Amino acid sequence: MNNNAKKAVILLSGGLDSATVLAQARADGYACYALSFDYGQRHRCELQAARRVAEALGVKEHRIFDLNLRQFGGSALTDDEISVPDAAPAAIDGGEEEIPVTYVPARNTIFLSLALAWSEVLGARDIFIGVNSVDYSGYPDCRPEFIEAFQKLANLATKEGIEGSGFQINTPLISLTKAEIIRRGSALGVDYGLTISCYNPDENGGACGQCDSCYLRREGFRAAEVEDPTRYS
Amino acid sequence: MNNNAKKAVILLSGGLDSATVLAQARADGYACYALSFDYGQRHRCELQAARRVAEALGVKEHRIFDLNLRQFGGSALTDDEISVPDAAPAAIDGGEEEIPVTYVPARNTIFLSLALAWSEVLGARDIFIGVNSVDYSGYPDCRPEFIEAFQKLANLATKEGIEGSGFQINTPLISLTKAEIIRRGSALGVDYGLTISCYNPDENGGACGQCDSCYLRREGFRAAEVEDPTRYS
Repeated sequence: MNNNAKKAVILLSGGLDSATVLAQARADGYACYALSFDYGQRHRCELQAARRVAEALGVKEHRIFDLNLRQFGGSALTDDEISVPDAAPAAIDGGEEEIPVTYVPARNTIFLSLALAWSEVLGARDIFIGVNSVDYSGYPDCRPEFIEAFQKLANLATKEGIEGSGFQINTPLISLTKAEIIRRGSALGVDYGLTISCYNPDENGGACGQCDSCYLRREGFRAAEVEDPTRYS
Repeated sequence: MNNNAKKAVILLSGGLDSATVLAQARADGYACYALSFDYGQRHRCELQAARRVAEALGVKEHRIFDLNLRQFGGSALTDDEISVPDAAPAAIDGGEEEIPVTYVPARNTIFLSLALAWSEVLGARDIFIGVNSVDYSGYPDCRPEFIEAFQKLANLATKEGIEGSGFQINTPLISLTKAEIIRRGSALGVDYGLTISCYNPDENGGACGQCDSCYLRREGFRAAEVEDPTRYS
């Protein structure tokens, strides 16, 4: 890695999309600082996946930030009283029919805010996030208009935004299908066997095969004609 | 309190401004949910002040959210290696000369994001924050354009913003001088003796009398011709 490489902060969940984004940022020549959140998620084993991916892709640093969103709850992912449903119409149709109960209130706003803070401290100007508004669960905070609004906010909110050249929120996957994401990541050398996408995995990280996220992932591998390395429970 | 009162989330630091905002929201008839952050701040004793203020003003609930921003540092308030300076020109002139080292990267973006999450879970549509762009330290995330951008973001980021009537970010102090804030709070019955503004208090909560925040507060009481209850060390 070039010692003069520009720094970037990459939001890394441990899933398929963010692993692809990290590989893309690395291929683009950035010194990569990966940021994951231990936010009380039901699928906390994704953090082990994030560690594996960060190591495999040679990040400069991987930080897992403690942020217990169970202090608020309000989502199937952060409240055990709410069950993760089977794949819902939004995922199956690719439409925007209804926002599912796996939606975590303000999650990407919170994650990007913290990525912004770390970026400013590090002197990074680029933030990467693996949002996608094609094959997705219908979350409002994955859409291009949300990202544009966040970038505008970031450059009003910070010292760097006011006095420096500002921040760029990079979303290399935003208009790709899941199959295109998988093909791109495969070409970049991502080992998807390291990643976990399932919202409701078993205790050994085996995927449920039923939730939105499993549905999108499985269909993606099928459409991409790439062998699916997912381990189902 | 009216049981049908609209809910509001109020960011409550324990300082003079946020106490005034809470009193204002209560006077406006809201059921008040106060939110404070244990973010690794040097002046952590402000949380005791927040508890006193929340109790004195009869909130519906007071939540102190754990969020250790020392994981990132980058500010005199979250990194013991950086000292809190004496009052700087921005505060003294009321200008925007330089953003001081007490600036915490992306703090208000992070705090508002978490307030947004809690609001959505509670079913509150109003968020109150005590930012002020007159007698302030020159932080970029206290300005009206930042607040406008956050409100726009909030209504793109959330289920409520998309499917409901959306969120309002309320900033009743934004264009008031410190003296006007103190007069308003006094009229609303705020006991400023319960509050702590100092960035660098002693272990008993005594104010240093030297930092930006002490400077603005002392000058505010003087200009308001209200007796200053601040306990200096």
